[in-house]
This record gives sequence, C-alpha cells and structure tokens, in this order.
Amino acid sequence: MTDENCVPVSVIGLGMMGSALADAYLRAGHRTTVWNRSAARADALVGRGASRAEAVADAVAASDVLVVCVTDYQALYEILEPVGAALRGRVIVNLTSGVPDDARAAQRWARSLGAEYLDGYVMAVPSGVGLPQTLLFYGGSRAAFDAHGPTLRVLGGNSVFIGEDPGTASLYDLALLGILWSSFAGALHGFALLASAGVPAGALAPFAESWLTHVVVPGIGQAARHVDAGRYATDVSTVALNALGLAKMVQASESQGIRPDVMVPIRDLLRERAEDGHGDEALASMIEVIRRGPETGR
Amino acid sequence: MTDENCVPVSVIGLGMMGSALADAYLRAGHRTTVWNRSAARADALVGRGASRAEAVADAVAASDVLVVCVTDYQALYEILEPVGAALRGRVIVNLTSGVPDDARAAQRWARSLGAEYLDGYVMAVPSGVGLPQTLLFYGGSRAAFDAHGPTLRVLGGNSVFIGEDPGTASLYDLALLGILWSSFAGALHGFALLASAGVPAGALAPFAESWLTHVVVPGIGQAARHVDAGRYATDVSTVALNALGLAKMVQASESQGIRPDVMVPIRDLLRERAEDGHGDEALASMIEVIRRGPETGR
Repeated sequence: MTDENCVPVSVIGLGMMGSALADAYLRAGHRTTVWNRSAARADALVGRGASRAEAVADAVAASDVLVVCVTDYQALYEILEPVGAALRGRVIVNLTSGVPDDARAAQRWARSLGAEYLDGYVMAVPSGVGLPQTLLFYGGSRAAFDAHGPTLRVLGGNSVFIGEDPGTASLYDLALLGILWSSFAGALHGFALLASAGVPAGALAPFAESWLTHVVVPGIGQAARHVDAGRYATDVSTVALNALGLAKMVQASESQGIRPDVMVPIRDLLRERAEDGHGDEALASMIEVIRRGPETGR
Repeated sequence: MTDENCVPVSVIGLGMMGSALADAYLRAGHRTTVWNRSAARADALVGRGASRAEAVADAVAASDVLVVCVTDYQALYEILEPVGAALRGRVIVNLTSGVPDDARAAQRWARSLGAEYLDGYVMAVPSGVGLPQTLLFYGGSRAAFDAHGPTLRVLGGNSVFIGEDPGTASLYDLALLGILWSSFAGALHGFALLASAGVPAGALAPFAESWLTHVVVPGIGQAARHVDAGRYATDVSTVALNALGLAKMVQASESQGIRPDVMVPIRDLLRERAEDGHGDEALASMIEVIRRGPETGR
C-alpha cells in the first residue's frame, strides 16, 4: 500500500541487491518506480506493486530520490549520462560497489550535473536489506543525508554518515569486507587442517565461534588502541613469538597436505617486522609494515 | 594454603605461561613443585609457596602429575631424557606448543618410557590461565584425562578431550590460532586503509566488532555446514563476485599506498576456484582449493 507521506523513490538496477532495495521501499509504502537494462527483471516487483519505467528517463522523472545499484561505475555512467540534464536537483543514492577513486569520480560527475550525490555501502546480503540492525555507510552530501534520513533508513536502520568524502565511506566498506574475507579464509584454512585428520568442520565451528567472540573481538579493540597510540608494548604475545607460530603453521599445513597460501603473507609481514627490530612488540605493530606501501616495501 | 585433597603437581618450565600454570596450582591449593633451567625464574613462585626442585629429577620425584611447558619439543627431550627411567608411571601433561608431528612423536616417546601422555593446548594468554571459561584442548591418553579431570581443570574450566591422537588436538590449536592471525591481519589491513585517509583505528573498531559478531560468526557456522555437506549452492554471495571484490580490494589498497599482501592469496585462491568452473558457488567452496595441497596445487 503506498503511503502518501513517503517520498517517491526510483530504483535503477534490479540485480539481487537492487531488487531487495526496491522490495524494501515497496514494503515501507513508498511509491517505487523500477528500471533495469533487461526489463524482465522488473516483472516480479511490478507484480508486488512497483511502477515499471519504460526508459531510464521515466525513472528519473518519477522521483526526486534515485537509488542506483548496478554492476559497476562504468554501468552507472552508461545508464545515466544520456539523461544527464534531467539529473539536476535529483538526489543520486549510489549503492554500486566500488573503490574510493570510483566514488570520488562519481561525486564530481554528479555535482557537475547539478545533482546531489550520496555514495552508500550496504553491509549486508540482500536478505538483510531493510532490517533495523542493518548497517549502511554513506559518504557525500551531508545535506542530502540529513534531508532524506527516513527514506535512507528504509534500507537499513543503522545508516551511518561517514563524511563528505565518499572515498572514505568506501574505505570503511573495504575494511569490513577485508575482515570478512580474511576471517573466512582463516576459518576455511582451519577446516582444511582438521579435514586432513578426518575431523568435520562442524566439530571446529562452535570453538571457532566462541574464539572469535571472546578472544578475537576484544583483541581487535585492544589492537585499535595500540595502533592509535602508535605504541605496541606488550607482556603477552609478541611479534617474534607469533612469527615463530606462523612459521610452524605454514610447516604443519604443508605436512598435512594443504596449501599454506593464506598464512604465508602473515608470516612474512611479522618476520619482516621482527627483522626490523620490533620483535618484542605486540602483534598489532604488524600494521607498520602494511602501511609501508607497495612501492617502498621490500 | 596446600589442600591435602589435591594431587601434588610439578611444573617444569617457568616462562610466562609456565609461571601462570604454577600460580594456578598454588591458588587452587595443590602442593606445587617448580623447576626451570635458569633457577632464578622460580624465585617468585617459591615466594608464593611453591617448592623449588633443585634438579629435574627432584621435580619428577615430587609429583605423579608433571606439567611441562618449555620452548619447544627439543627442549622437552633435552630436559626429560636424562631422567627417563623415573618417568615410568608418571603422567606427562605437555603444554609446550608444537605441530601435529611433534605431538605424535612425544606420545610415542612417553609411551616407550612407560609414562602416560597428554598433549595440551592452552587457548589463552597467561593471564587467562585458571579461569572457568578458559579453553584447553587435550589429546593422548583418555584414561589420564579422565583420571585427572579436576587437576586439569585447574588450568581452565573448559578443558576438552579431542581424542587419542594428540596430533588432532594440535590441529584444533592451529586452526584457532589461524583464525586469530587471519582475522587480526584483516583488521590491521582495514586500520591501515582508514589510516591512509586520516581516520583513526578507533573509528572502525566498533563497526569491526559488531561486524565480526553479527555477520562473520554466523557466516562461519554456515560455511561449516557447506563444507561438511560438500555442497556450495548459494543465491547470495558467489566465488566469482567475491573474487572481483578482492581484485578491487588489492587495487584500492595499492591506490591508497598500503601493501595488499594479506589480501593477495585470498584473491588468488578465489580466482583459481572460479577458473576451475565453480564461480557460482558459495565463498566456502574456496576450501576445495586450499585442500588441494602444496604439491598438487598450481
């Protein structure tokens, strides 16, 4: 049921994520116009009450708020450049995934057309869209974020404005994705180690969950304090000790017949930090080697 | 105060962890005998009520239960081989860190001397020793584990017997350590990304903690179910999609001037899995490439 108090929204791009975004607006009572390059993707949404835009120009005309979720930034330009003049005064909420330079270039492009620009990152799978706890990072126009708070929070109750530089919002997204990828890779490595002895992953999983919750999570908060202080004193678990542990990990992985790839760079970064004379510092001091950059690193 | 209902325990090796182990026994009322290669390390413990063994043979003679925590397995043999005959009938609780082959060799060695053998892994820093929630994995003699349950639980209330093969207990230890290292490396990478835009680690940390708790932990349980079923169907987040995301992550890290090392092997493993024709499977299917082994891998 459309609620006339809600702002009309157009959703451009109806992949799995785009469709979930449009559904969230339909459920919340927004007049929702949808467009997708291959029009058939809109059929189910139209069946649930969305208006089909026959052309992108129709989607742009239908709503002041344009939520865009397409394959990449190249697709964004291909789709919206032809209707560029019509974007003046519109709010582009771009939820397409990209990197900082993409986000900054899109902001410049939108501004040049007289549009307001928000770059957003949905920190959830499509089924998580629209929940009160769902996190989205936004960067770009603070005025647009403030003016459209209730409309943005339809997509996730935990919508956070990071700053006027959309590149920084992109870095928050990348940082959390990196934690997901590395933790998953570590867990899969662990499952593979146990599988080499015939132990199912389900036997490790409860220990892994408890370990992450009670040991890793508090440790990461502590690491952040070390990093921000630039001081890495410890009487617990040093770079040198962990470098030795990782060398054993790589060796044991090979002995068990599995690939040590995930662990090798961590071993090497810690070893490098130890060789630089910081072997007695806390694990978190490894960041000083990561920060050194691809050019200046050894 | 020594409690005569408690079994006497000797603690051999008084580094940071060994000292914490001895302290836990003192606090719990066990008659506690301590020995260290450099005797001065025992002074503080003796001040708190421990008995000093002048020689390893005295430590072995003083208690049926010998808790050993030394630098490595080589040190274990150097210290205990000279008193080998006296080990008959003793229970060796070896908490020295090592890899599966170390643990299995030590079990054979202990058995050859007529000693009972338990290989244990303290999943905590020294200050966590002796808490009710502290996790220890044990492998080796089930009879010894069952007979000495209360004595072993002094070191951590959550003492878990994994099986008769101490190598498997070692794999549980390595698996959790790997998760710690990889998660930490991912978090430090994230902190470095944000630092490149002048954002302190403390700004990311609460998001990282919530993300690990509410997204990563449930995802790892789901991944375990995928792995054990050997089926990786998903309609959410595919290998191909994540491989693209990781390529962007590596590119963005380099653009921001930080080293992408931690992310590179994850990108490559996913890319390899996609190239093998499994691009539409869930992220967890990356384990099939890790399992392939260092020899047969490309």
